[in-house]
Amino acid sequence: MFENKAKTELSQLGEFGLIKHLTQHIELQNESSVKGVGDDAAVIDNGGKMTVVSTDMLVEGVHFDLSYVPLKHLGYKAVMVNLSDIFAMNAKPMQITVSIAMSSKFPLEAVEELYDGILKACAKWKVDLVGGDTTSSTSGLVISITAIGEADKDQLIYRNGAKEKDLVCVTGDLGGAYVGLLLLEREKEIYKSNPGIQPDLEGNDYILERQLKPEARGDIMEMFKDLELKPTSMIDISDGLASELLHICTQSGVGCNLYEDKLPIDPMTFERARQFNLDPTTCVLNGGEDYELLFTIPMSDYDKIKGNPHITAIGHITDQNSGVNLIIKDGSMHPVTAQGWDAFLKK
Amino acid sequence: MFENKAKTELSQLGEFGLIKHLTQHIELQNESSVKGVGDDAAVIDNGGKMTVVSTDMLVEGVHFDLSYVPLKHLGYKAVMVNLSDIFAMNAKPMQITVSIAMSSKFPLEAVEELYDGILKACAKWKVDLVGGDTTSSTSGLVISITAIGEADKDQLIYRNGAKEKDLVCVTGDLGGAYVGLLLLEREKEIYKSNPGIQPDLEGNDYILERQLKPEARGDIMEMFKDLELKPTSMIDISDGLASELLHICTQSGVGCNLYEDKLPIDPMTFERARQFNLDPTTCVLNGGEDYELLFTIPMSDYDKIKGNPHITAIGHITDQNSGVNLIIKDGSMHPVTAQGWDAFLKK
Repeated sequence: MFENKAKTELSQLGEFGLIKHLTQHIELQNESSVKGVGDDAAVIDNGGKMTVVSTDMLVEGVHFDLSYVPLKHLGYKAVMVNLSDIFAMNAKPMQITVSIAMSSKFPLEAVEELYDGILKACAKWKVDLVGGDTTSSTSGLVISITAIGEADKDQLIYRNGAKEKDLVCVTGDLGGAYVGLLLLEREKEIYKSNPGIQPDLEGNDYILERQLKPEARGDIMEMFKDLELKPTSMIDISDGLASELLHICTQSGVGCNLYEDKLPIDPMTFERARQFNLDPTTCVLNGGEDYELLFTIPMSDYDKIKGNPHITAIGHITDQNSGVNLIIKDGSMHPVTAQGWDAFLKK
Repeated sequence: MFENKAKTELSQLGEFGLIKHLTQHIELQNESSVKGVGDDAAVIDNGGKMTVVSTDMLVEGVHFDLSYVPLKHLGYKAVMVNLSDIFAMNAKPMQITVSIAMSSKFPLEAVEELYDGILKACAKWKVDLVGGDTTSSTSGLVISITAIGEADKDQLIYRNGAKEKDLVCVTGDLGGAYVGLLLLEREKEIYKSNPGIQPDLEGNDYILERQLKPEARGDIMEMFKDLELKPTSMIDISDGLASELLHICTQSGVGCNLYEDKLPIDPMTFERARQFNLDPTTCVLNGGEDYELLFTIPMSDYDKIKGNPHITAIGHITDQNSGVNLIIKDGSMHPVTAQGWDAFLKK
C-alpha cells in the first residue's frame, strides 16, 4: 500500500529522531496538560495533586527473549521500567494499567506467571493495578504498561533544570544489566549449537539480576526527603548514561564534563566486560537498562551526598558551548555521543 | 519453556474469563484508586477533579487488516476507541499517550499517516497527546493508547448503577460497523482470487464509515447536560450490544428485557445484512465496534429522551432472577448470550 510514496526508513531517523519528527508540531491545548512529550513522564494538573503519567511498551524479540527470560521476571521488569520513569519525576507511583497481546495458544499458566511478576512489582511499591486490555496476537508477546503517579507541584523534577556548575550524580552502579545481557546471549548461542550443554551462569548472580530483575530506585525519593535535597534535573537511565546525559544537557541548554575515573562500576561488571573484550567504560556509558537515576544538584549541596554509598558524583555541568565531554583517565577530553539502545537502530 | 506445566489454553477462558481470573485477587491499596478493573475506565482521586484512565491495544491481524484499512483511519479509530471509554464514564477526555510497535522497515511516510489520523481525532475533542513510546516490532503493527479524562466526582457514571424498572437506552444505530467489516472482508477475498477486479464498495459509504472511521459519542455528554439527565449506568458498545448489556446487568445485579422491534438499525445495515444471509438482529446484538453508548435512566426521565433522534429506548431493567432476555417480534422470549467479539475466541 506504500508503492507510490516516498520512502524514508525509520532506521535512518532512530527512535528519538522519529519521536521528535512526529511530535514537533503538537501544541498542548488543555491547561491541565502541564508537561507533554519530552520528559520521563507527562504531568497533568487536575486541581489537586499533580498526576504523572508514563508509558512503555516491551516487544518480544526486541526487548526480551523468552528463551532465557522467565515470564515472572519479565512481568516484574515491565512494571519496574515504568515505575522508574515516575520516580525520575520525583513522584510516587500509585496505579498502573497493563495491556498484553499474546498468542491465544499461550497457556493460562504462562499468563499467570507473567501476572505474578507484575503483581509482585506492584506490591513492592504499593501500586494498584487498575485496568488494562488483554488481547490476542498473531505473533509475539507485547506488553504495554502505563504508570500513574502523584506529586505536589513543587516536588516535581524535570529534565530541563540543570544549571552551570551543578554536580552530576548517579545512583548505584552502571553497565551491569548490559554485561548480564551479553552473558545470557552467549549462553543461548552455546545452547543452540549444542543443546546438550547446560548454560553456565554460576557466579554471575549480580549482573544477571541487574538484567533480569532490575529495581527502580524508589528508595532514592525517600533519601532526597531525608537529606532535604532537591535535584535541579533528573532522568532515569534506561538507554544508557551517555544518551540520558545528552537529554538533560540538551533540554537544560548546558554542557557537561564527566570523569571516567568517577564512573561507578561493580567489580563483576568490570571483570566480565573485560572477558567479553569490551571497554568497561563503554558498557557504563552505553549499556542501558540499569534503571538507576541520573540527576544534578547545586554544588552547595555536595555535603549532603558526600560519602553516601548510594550516590556518586561523576561530573559537573558546564556552559552549552563547551559540549558534553568525557575526561578519560589520561586526562584527555572526548565528546560524549549517544550510542545507547535504540529500538530502530539495533535491529 | 512450558513443557512441564499444566496447559490451559486461553481460548477456553475467553478474554473476559481471563481478565476475571487474573484480577480476582487484586485488592486496591491506595485511597486514590477509586475504581479499578471492571468498568470502562479506572477512576483516580488526586484531590481535585477525578482522573479517569482507559487503555486499549490494537494488534495487526487481530483488530485490523492493513490491506484495506488506511493508516490514517486506523490512527483515528485507535484514538476514538479510547475516547469512547472515557465518554462512557461521563467524563471529558483531556490527554492521551500513544505507544506504537512497528517494523523498522516501515516507511516514515506511513507512520506520518498514522499520526495524522491520531492527531485529527485528538483535535476533534481537544485532547492533548502528552507522551508515549515508539519501538520496533519483529512482526506486525501494535498500537496501545491510554486515554486520560477528568470529571467531577458526582458526574461519573459506572456500570453498576442500573435499577429495576429503569429504561435501557442506546445512542445512534447498531450493527453497521460489523456489516461494513463483512463487506471489506468479502472484497478482499475477491481481490485476492482475482487481483484484476477492483473492489466494489460503491453505495456503501455509511457502513464503511461505521467500520473504518467510528466516532465516539462525546456529543451525548453535552446532550445529557442540556437535558439535565444523568443515566444510572453506562457503557460503550465495543464488543456488541449483548455483551455490554450483560456487563451492566451482572455488575448492577439486575435482569433486563430487550425488545427486538425497538433495536435501532440503519436501513443500509439491514439490507446488507440480508444480502450476507444474516439476521440483522444478530448483527445488532453481536456485531460490535459501533462505539455507541448503552445506558439506563429512571423511568421518570422518559420524557427527557422521548422523540430524541439520537436516543432509542430498547428495553427495561428487571429483577436479577428474570435474566437478560430478548422479546422477539412474535412475542416470544429468548435469553441473551454474549457472542460478541472476543480476541481469544475468534482466532
